[in-house]
Amino acid sequence: MKKWISPSLLISTFALSAIGHYANWDHTLQFILSAVAVVFVAGFLGRATESVAHYAGQRLGGFLNATFGNAAELIIAFFLVKEGLYDMVKASLTGSIIGNLLLVLGLSLFAGGLKHKIQNFNVTLAGLNGSLMIVAVIALFVPAMFFNTHSITENDTDLLSLIVAGLLIASYLAWLVFSMITHKKFLDDVTADSDEELPNEHAPVWSKKRAILYLVLATVMVGFVSEWLVGTLETLTERFGLSELFVGAFLVAIIGNAAEHSAAILLAMKNKMGAAVEIAVGSSLQIALFVAPVLIFASYFMGDTMDIVFTAIELVAIGVSVFIAKSIIQDGSTNWYEGLLLLAVYLILGVSFYLV
Amino acid sequence: MKKWISPSLLISTFALSAIGHYANWDHTLQFILSAVAVVFVAGFLGRATESVAHYAGQRLGGFLNATFGNAAELIIAFFLVKEGLYDMVKASLTGSIIGNLLLVLGLSLFAGGLKHKIQNFNVTLAGLNGSLMIVAVIALFVPAMFFNTHSITENDTDLLSLIVAGLLIASYLAWLVFSMITHKKFLDDVTADSDEELPNEHAPVWSKKRAILYLVLATVMVGFVSEWLVGTLETLTERFGLSELFVGAFLVAIIGNAAEHSAAILLAMKNKMGAAVEIAVGSSLQIALFVAPVLIFASYFMGDTMDIVFTAIELVAIGVSVFIAKSIIQDGSTNWYEGLLLLAVYLILGVSFYLV
Amino acid sequence: MKKWISPSLLISTFALSAIGHYANWDHTLQFILSAVAVVFVAGFLGRATESVAHYAGQRLGGFLNATFGNAAELIIAFFLVKEGLYDMVKASLTGSIIGNLLLVLGLSLFAGGLKHKIQNFNVTLAGLNGSLMIVAVIALFVPAMFFNTHSITENDTDLLSLIVAGLLIASYLAWLVFSMITHKKFLDDVTADSDEELPNEHAPVWSKKRAILYLVLATVMVGFVSEWLVGTLETLTERFGLSELFVGAFLVAIIGNAAEHSAAILLAMKNKMGAAVEIAVGSSLQIALFVAPVLIFASYFMGDTMDIVFTAIELVAIGVSVFIAKSIIQDGSTNWYEGLLLLAVYLILGVSFYLV
Repeated sequence: MKKWISPSLLISTFALSAIGHYANWDHTLQFILSAVAVVFVAGFLGRATESVAHYAGQRLGGFLNATFGNAAELIIAFFLVKEGLYDMVKASLTGSIIGNLLLVLGLSLFAGGLKHKIQNFNVTLAGLNGSLMIVAVIALFVPAMFFNTHSITENDTDLLSLIVAGLLIASYLAWLVFSMITHKKFLDDVTADSDEELPNEHAPVWSKKRAILYLVLATVMVGFVSEWLVGTLETLTERFGLSELFVGAFLVAIIGNAAEHSAAILLAMKNKMGAAVEIAVGSSLQIALFVAPVLIFASYFMGDTMDIVFTAIELVAIGVSVFIAKSIIQDGSTNWYEGLLLLAVYLILGVSFYLV
Repeated sequence: MKKWISPSLLISTFALSAIGHYANWDHTLQFILSAVAVVFVAGFLGRATESVAHYAGQRLGGFLNATFGNAAELIIAFFLVKEGLYDMVKASLTGSIIGNLLLVLGLSLFAGGLKHKIQNFNVTLAGLNGSLMIVAVIALFVPAMFFNTHSITENDTDLLSLIVAGLLIASYLAWLVFSMITHKKFLDDVTADSDEELPNEHAPVWSKKRAILYLVLATVMVGFVSEWLVGTLETLTERFGLSELFVGAFLVAIIGNAAEHSAAILLAMKNKMGAAVEIAVGSSLQIALFVAPVLIFASYFMGDTMDIVFTAIELVAIGVSVFIAKSIIQDGSTNWYEGLLLLAVYLILGVSFYLV
Repeated sequence: MKKWISPSLLISTFALSAIGHYANWDHTLQFILSAVAVVFVAGFLGRATESVAHYAGQRLGGFLNATFGNAAELIIAFFLVKEGLYDMVKASLTGSIIGNLLLVLGLSLFAGGLKHKIQNFNVTLAGLNGSLMIVAVIALFVPAMFFNTHSITENDTDLLSLIVAGLLIASYLAWLVFSMITHKKFLDDVTADSDEELPNEHAPVWSKKRAILYLVLATVMVGFVSEWLVGTLETLTERFGLSELFVGAFLVAIIGNAAEHSAAILLAMKNKMGAAVEIAVGSSLQIALFVAPVLIFASYFMGDTMDIVFTAIELVAIGVSVFIAKSIIQDGSTNWYEGLLLLAVYLILGVSFYLV
């Protein structure tokens, strides 16, 4: 498992993808090169995250990873906002949320569950995450409902969007205070478990400083490669006749979350399910509670407010994902079959988006 | 309790109903005869199921019963599909799902709860069943949502229906692998409990072979009587001015599930709540994850695909039933009041369907 | 904390408000006087409730408080029904339900959580309350769904409303039987906890008889002051340009629930979270399962049946509140952050109602 993330392969695939991008090779070729590069870079990131998590404790490690993993998405979405492509932004935000809750979490539970019969994690944290997800769904659902059943002026829609965005960011900041400061210990019993396992594990390969350095480096590399890859998508969309909704919500999201994928699955297979869930759920929460509201404020400061009104289909996809994910994680215990269920829902949504 | 399922009463009511059917007596009389016969045949089935469950362990017994109980419904629905009565099929599937989740489960909890203050069962199984129910709701809800908010060609709707049906069957087969093979022991602690109770119970009346033979025989008899009874419904519908939606979703479903009713309630009263819940919930899951998809594929092979798009009211009825049932069983502990709540929701839906 | 509910302040603010009302002073002044009086009267009620709860056990005390707290609302709504203002009635019922589930519960969790890291209460009761809330939502949601997707005659709508109202009242009465008689002990372990704490607490100031007398007196005073205050709202609505929906669902509800607010928050801060939750959740359940159905029957006997069909926005507000509240209380453990989440949802709904 560890051998294939060899430095030479990592550097050469990254370099090839970079050359392909800057030399403007054929887009299909660029796509393949950067897709391959993403696999290695994300593997590097997963490795670095694990090392940092080793020093920082599982939860902080998971949180760091979610933050770093979403940095690429935030940058990409920011450029989309700048060009006024609000529908594409919302589609990719939707895809990111459901991709994390269904695909990343589903693969983690499935892969981890095949190796370990039952995997457990902090049930209190799972419950809190579930409640936070419901708040995020409500914050997206209520404005859309009012927008569709009442005549609201554009000004009021923008005002409502900004207020809801502000409340979401405030909730997110309060969550950081809660989970990192006032109730840190209370949510940390998973880390305690992993500490007990430490003697059985291999010693960390990298020093603390090096691990952090590599984490930053890997995140930057993922950001670059993701962007190169996304840059080829428009051409591919036309060549293969795919809808923008499908591309935004599935292809972009899958590639953009590749880092979380590999990191979460690796952790799940090492029976650190608490950290894997933290990555998948934490990442989707961060999209809904932090990335989306920040983009709304960004659009406001650029002079044309992006409203928070998602389409009915996007809301259904998000709502459905939250309900099944919440139902599955709330008992703090998972198995391969629950992973399969999440993947089945992801496929149903994927096929539906594809056929629209 | 056991004396009234006397062989003579069983055979004579069954014979009378058969004569009434084949001699083509008045339909109202036929209806009454077959309704009475159903009570005894279903009682026989419940008895046989219990005996087999005694040998097989509670969960396998519950599963067998759900399978056998739905055999009649599958056959009836198959003939309806053959005649192209797709709306009636969906109404009876809806009625079967909500009948099991609200009426069968409600009566079991209520009757069991009056005898036993609190009844407990495997909380892990309850959680998994809840997640499976949500997946079933999502699989029915998402296509309807896309169908109603986007213009999709009939071909694409059929394709989507077949894909979703395939995913549901795959989920169901994987569930069998999970619950029967990889995690059998993990879900079996209820059986373990019942084994401890065994010394206190009466010895099984029938041998293992005879119990299995009787289970098959009883299921066949239930199938016949149910069909005779259903055959009289059209006339009754006209005579008493009932809507087809109400007849399909309530009368047919109640009669078709009579077997599960009596079996589940008997088990609940004997404090084998795990098996009773397995019958009620397992049966409704089997309808949604197996019977409905099989019917879609059957219609496809007959040349005219039945789509998976249920009406808004049917989806609301199913969704509402799943939410309240999930909320009630998820703590693995029940009482008479929770049974009453399920029955209240069943009545609200019944009155609403009746008045439409 | 106890000193400010001095008898002289209580009596003088109440008297001033009474004089203002009967001497017909300026409405804005009346509003301010009665709003101040409400604070003191509600404080008196909270104190009396606590004393009675001391003798009666936490749960019965919480139930009594919910009953007494809703007396004012029932009287006010009754007069609105008498004048045929059905939309205002439904808006204020909606506001009362969400006000209890989000504002009262949210402030209790937040204030209690700041003083006590984690607060626990009977998880069985929390689960049952959650199921009851879902039944209430279903009972309001199903008729509206049928009404909006099918053509139903007014007579049938009225009939459906009366039947559903009857089922809700029956469910409520059965709940009293269940929680007070058949399963009293089972739900009482929170009281047991508080009994253990008793040695550490201050001795009750009032005798049992006096406590009960003061509870009745305080409730009557709250009823009067609430009514005087509500009487000034129409003028204020016009003066400050607020919509009736917002006033009915937020201002009236906040003021009408002031008693529950202070009582629940006081109990939460004293770490009697079981009683605080019982007040907030019990109060909203009583509105949905008892007050609303009684008003429907009252309107029927007055000759013009008020139907049970709430608007889409009201249903969304109620449904959303129930889901987040259920998600938060179902583990029987709360903290300040969960209170904050409830308040955030309350703000989102409030801003949305305000902007419509």
